[in-house]
Amino acid sequence: MSALVGVIMGSKSDWSTLSHTADMLDQLGIPYEVKVVSAHRTPDLLFQYAEEAAGKGIEVIIAGAGGAAHLPGMCAAKTHLPVLGVPVQSSMLSGVDSLLSIVQMPAGVPVATLAIGKAGAVNAALLSASILGGKHPEFSQALQDFRAQQTENVLNNADPRQA
Amino acid sequence: MSALVGVIMGSKSDWSTLSHTADMLDQLGIPYEVKVVSAHRTPDLLFQYAEEAAGKGIEVIIAGAGGAAHLPGMCAAKTHLPVLGVPVQSSMLSGVDSLLSIVQMPAGVPVATLAIGKAGAVNAALLSASILGGKHPEFSQALQDFRAQQTENVLNNADPRQA
Amino acid sequence: MSALVGVIMGSKSDWSTLSHTADMLDQLGIPYEVKVVSAHRTPDLLFQYAEEAAGKGIEVIIAGAGGAAHLPGMCAAKTHLPVLGVPVQSSMLSGVDSLLSIVQMPAGVPVATLAIGKAGAVNAALLSASILGGKHPEFSQALQDFRAQQTENVLNNADPRQA
Amino acid sequence: MSALVGVIMGSKSDWSTLSHTADMLDQLGIPYEVKVVSAHRTPDLLFQYAEEAAGKGIEVIIAGAGGAAHLPGMCAAKTHLPVLGVPVQSSMLSGVDSLLSIVQMPAGVPVATLAIGKAGAVNAALLSASILGGKHPEFSQALQDFRAQQTENVLNNADPRQA
Amino acid sequence: MSALVGVIMGSKSDWSTLSHTADMLDQLGIPYEVKVVSAHRTPDLLFQYAEEAAGKGIEVIIAGAGGAAHLPGMCAAKTHLPVLGVPVQSSMLSGVDSLLSIVQMPAGVPVATLAIGKAGAVNAALLSASILGGKHPEFSQALQDFRAQQTENVLNNADPRQA
Amino acid sequence: MSALVGVIMGSKSDWSTLSHTADMLDQLGIPYEVKVVSAHRTPDLLFQYAEEAAGKGIEVIIAGAGGAAHLPGMCAAKTHLPVLGVPVQSSMLSGVDSLLSIVQMPAGVPVATLAIGKAGAVNAALLSASILGGKHPEFSQALQDFRAQQTENVLNNADPRQA
Amino acid sequence: MSALVGVIMGSKSDWSTLSHTADMLDQLGIPYEVKVVSAHRTPDLLFQYAEEAAGKGIEVIIAGAGGAAHLPGMCAAKTHLPVLGVPVQSSMLSGVDSLLSIVQMPAGVPVATLAIGKAGAVNAALLSASILGGKHPEFSQALQDFRAQQTENVLNNADPRQA
Amino acid sequence: MSALVGVIMGSKSDWSTLSHTADMLDQLGIPYEVKVVSAHRTPDLLFQYAEEAAGKGIEVIIAGAGGAAHLPGMCAAKTHLPVLGVPVQSSMLSGVDSLLSIVQMPAGVPVATLAIGKAGAVNAALLSASILGGKHPEFSQALQDFRAQQTENVLNNADPRQA
Repeated sequence: MSALVGVIMGSKSDWSTLSHTADMLDQLGIPYEVKVVSAHRTPDLLFQYAEEAAGKGIEVIIAGAGGAAHLPGMCAAKTHLPVLGVPVQSSMLSGVDSLLSIVQMPAGVPVATLAIGKAGAVNAALLSASILGGKHPEFSQALQDFRAQQTENVLNNADPRQA
Repeated sequence: MSALVGVIMGSKSDWSTLSHTADMLDQLGIPYEVKVVSAHRTPDLLFQYAEEAAGKGIEVIIAGAGGAAHLPGMCAAKTHLPVLGVPVQSSMLSGVDSLLSIVQMPAGVPVATLAIGKAGAVNAALLSASILGGKHPEFSQALQDFRAQQTENVLNNADPRQA
Repeated sequence: MSALVGVIMGSKSDWSTLSHTADMLDQLGIPYEVKVVSAHRTPDLLFQYAEEAAGKGIEVIIAGAGGAAHLPGMCAAKTHLPVLGVPVQSSMLSGVDSLLSIVQMPAGVPVATLAIGKAGAVNAALLSASILGGKHPEFSQALQDFRAQQTENVLNNADPRQA
Repeated sequence: MSALVGVIMGSKSDWSTLSHTADMLDQLGIPYEVKVVSAHRTPDLLFQYAEEAAGKGIEVIIAGAGGAAHLPGMCAAKTHLPVLGVPVQSSMLSGVDSLLSIVQMPAGVPVATLAIGKAGAVNAALLSASILGGKHPEFSQALQDFRAQQTENVLNNADPRQA
Repeated sequence: MSALVGVIMGSKSDWSTLSHTADMLDQLGIPYEVKVVSAHRTPDLLFQYAEEAAGKGIEVIIAGAGGAAHLPGMCAAKTHLPVLGVPVQSSMLSGVDSLLSIVQMPAGVPVATLAIGKAGAVNAALLSASILGGKHPEFSQALQDFRAQQTENVLNNADPRQA
Repeated sequence: MSALVGVIMGSKSDWSTLSHTADMLDQLGIPYEVKVVSAHRTPDLLFQYAEEAAGKGIEVIIAGAGGAAHLPGMCAAKTHLPVLGVPVQSSMLSGVDSLLSIVQMPAGVPVATLAIGKAGAVNAALLSASILGGKHPEFSQALQDFRAQQTENVLNNADPRQA
Repeated sequence: MSALVGVIMGSKSDWSTLSHTADMLDQLGIPYEVKVVSAHRTPDLLFQYAEEAAGKGIEVIIAGAGGAAHLPGMCAAKTHLPVLGVPVQSSMLSGVDSLLSIVQMPAGVPVATLAIGKAGAVNAALLSASILGGKHPEFSQALQDFRAQQTENVLNNADPRQA
Repeated sequence: MSALVGVIMGSKSDWSTLSHTADMLDQLGIPYEVKVVSAHRTPDLLFQYAEEAAGKGIEVIIAGAGGAAHLPGMCAAKTHLPVLGVPVQSSMLSGVDSLLSIVQMPAGVPVATLAIGKAGAVNAALLSASILGGKHPEFSQALQDFRAQQTENVLNNADPRQA
């Protein structure tokens, strides 16, 4: 099955965050592709990627970036697919700059923004399962199974004093 | 056609923001319902709403709230549907509290967060069209038509000195 | 004597903060119970816990959580007992997100919020002694003894140059 | 019945916020007194007030202040009663300074902090009902009645499009 | 003389800020053009504009935008000309989001960022005079004349009590 | 010569910051005393210290504290001597809470606030020399000598590439 | 008597803030002069002013500025007199930029920083009385009289419900 | 060829940041000089440097500083050359203070501000190439070659999973 989710990131250093997206997509059985696409250093590649994504079968794009994080928003400007933005923790401002650059999009072009860092990366995969689930019931089921297991894990480990 | 999008908000005063979501859903032809559901004042109703949403045909939930905005996150905790969060501008902290309370969800339960205020409200509707579009091509088409028109409008009004 | 204070936290990792609450409750001789209850991963357990707390003799609930910290506020939505919120330091934003998510509750449902991290965890125990002290004079006395000892310790160590 | 709650504030201008505390205490039937006590302009009065409060029957102190809001914390330093802090919105920094000055107390002396502004003022009254309720069941009942009515009001006004 | 400075902005509403750039360019005698170019609504036009600017004689680009302000950075990604960014005050976050989205560019693609709002808009014009002055001494002279006059004005109005 | 400067701090852990004040006072030859005085744990000692300072010959008080840093402001409330506040870096919020708690004093009772952490601690000593210098010319001279030497040091080490 | 305090500000628009300094100096009977001196538009005047201040009898300099507020710090760099900095509320960032630009001075050159806006302006006058009081007992007395009156005013108006 | 770019910084400790500027200027073949010039400890040297820069052939000044970073702005106040400001990460506030002190210049005297830290230091060199390129085509060419190579590097390393 060809990739349904395209996971892109602004630089190789973002992989330490976005690899958590890939791990969760693997766990959910969702086919995906990963690629470094820099809004500022490879703008033409970004436009090409966003324009061609729908045509080659991608249904959700997950874009992670830090600092003046323009990748998710510019990707959203060039596609009608849902774009999920993951703010990568920046070395200077803890990701506040990344978060605001991604979430504060003007009316007309949305980016579905997740939490800063690893939590957001994991959740981008879960949200893509939720979105894909409307058309592909198997991913909705995989998500529900994951959620049920997650709840079970908390219930079985309710005593914080036990390692 | 029954509602595909459920638009909920924490109090009646949030309607001045969320009405922009409703207006854009109308423009895109997406059937929806609107309701005041308070996480803190009507917690049982919130749980019931979230639990029953998928069963009655809702495919996307849009939740707007301000301050310690728990509505989107708690709604997401009780459904596997995509939950879109709109941070309403708070009277004291300009919506920074609303934004952080909505976007900083822990790994395991995502909320797709939009911009603070009106822009986020409009974009929640556009994002729901994008999400629904996977299964319902007519909404993908409506979204693409809106986007094309929006681009046209900017191109036709490129001189900022003209009223 | 059965537990008078219920100490809950959103995940096991919060125990490194909330264990300071438990230590201080031990020191004050206040009976308590501790439990991991996740607002997002075990929402039904949270509602059950909050609903049943008063009935089983709990008089104060202390809830610690980080990030989009919904645990204290949602707990407060389901009980009329005093709920004390401890913002756990988040890995990305130093606990500012935790603090705002806990303290900025809307009119109608209060959370008594303490400082971020260890100081807040210790103080939640002291505040519960102060609250319980109205009905249980022995805890008021234990608190006053602790406070007097604390003052004594500072007075006896007034020279900062001595180790 | 003599006052059970002492409501103090740093200056007369804080009354526009703290009057909401008084209104809610009235509604709940809790006897209280109100007074301007400035930490910086009348420090001796503050110490006297805090020292004498328990002796004259006060069981909860609510202190509101703005800017470098030292009133709640210094009051807490001089009493073992629960002190509830209401950050008043400051003219320059929207109350962020007030909030941090009140909530970030060191381990040893807690202040139960509420939301910035009117919401916090209302909630300080509700929290005091919750605290007093342990010893005085009639205030617990008044609180539960208020909460039930509040829930009812939301349920009866669930359509945001109706005025 | 054809335009040496291209002044672009993300929407017509930015003109109330960027008109101050135009006024100062007029005062300095620097030929310029103004145009609405939206990064998100007209991404192809932005790329075309940035690619063609140098070829048609533009030597400096001034780009103003607010919120998730991607216009200056994406423009810089497509040209080797100096790009000056003016953060427009956003309605929700006072321009903090605009500032961080513009200034926090990654190594490799700079944007010369000015102050938020009117001051930044005026200064973008003065900075362009300074940059152009290297090659066009007449603009350096115009800048020095303006600066001398500005100093004179302060010296002649040193008494703040006089209207 | 008896102490002219009183250096107080909220806890022993603040000594790692305030020791820089002591070192600089030593270097300038200004007699001083140091003492741990906690606003929250020893409020009566604080009032006594502030009240008696002028009488025993202290001419300037330097107070360092972190978090909800009430020490400088409450000290200022009880003396007419100049009080210099040093915000100690807090473990959670980098000293922003300390800074705002110290600097945002209401009209009527000033605290002369210095930078967060070590720089502020050093500068409190230099500022006290400047203040004392009006009455004690020898400290003004010591300050001018220090400043001249400091300038010399920079001029003699102008090449950043030399270790 | 010639001026003992020099009150300078970065622009005429700062007078609406610094006039409160002048009013309080008048009230305290301290001779002063006021002048607009811009760090950026009249840097040579600033250096001349700071260099000559001590020689002409000025003993304290009060400098108010907003935004990138360099006036107090650069003044301090050119004099050994105490320099008091008043952060003027900026139109965009509420004076946070002004505050940080003034207070975060490096080790070696202090600025005694007051609160943002009117409170800081009033307090700069009171602090100058406190500083001058060491050498000029009449200003110490004037300060103590003002402070006593201020306390009296609060004590006489302790009921916030009375207009 | 004599230096075209003057790189100055407030203290030797800033060299760990500004050395990245020097490295990139080397790579682009742009002649430059580096010097420690402190706004606060050597104000006269700063004025002399800024006044003489144009006369000795400097065409662009790059100034890096941290905390209350007055170096770039005061340099700009004394020259009509373009001044590029690099906010150095401060130990306490992550460079937010440095950024605001540099970028928030008043209308009349601009500083072209880059990102906080290393990214800004690298980009100051690239921006100077862009500015110099108008008059010196060889630096424009060097910049374009660097940019093309940078793009190539990303395209050749698009798989984030490869080391």
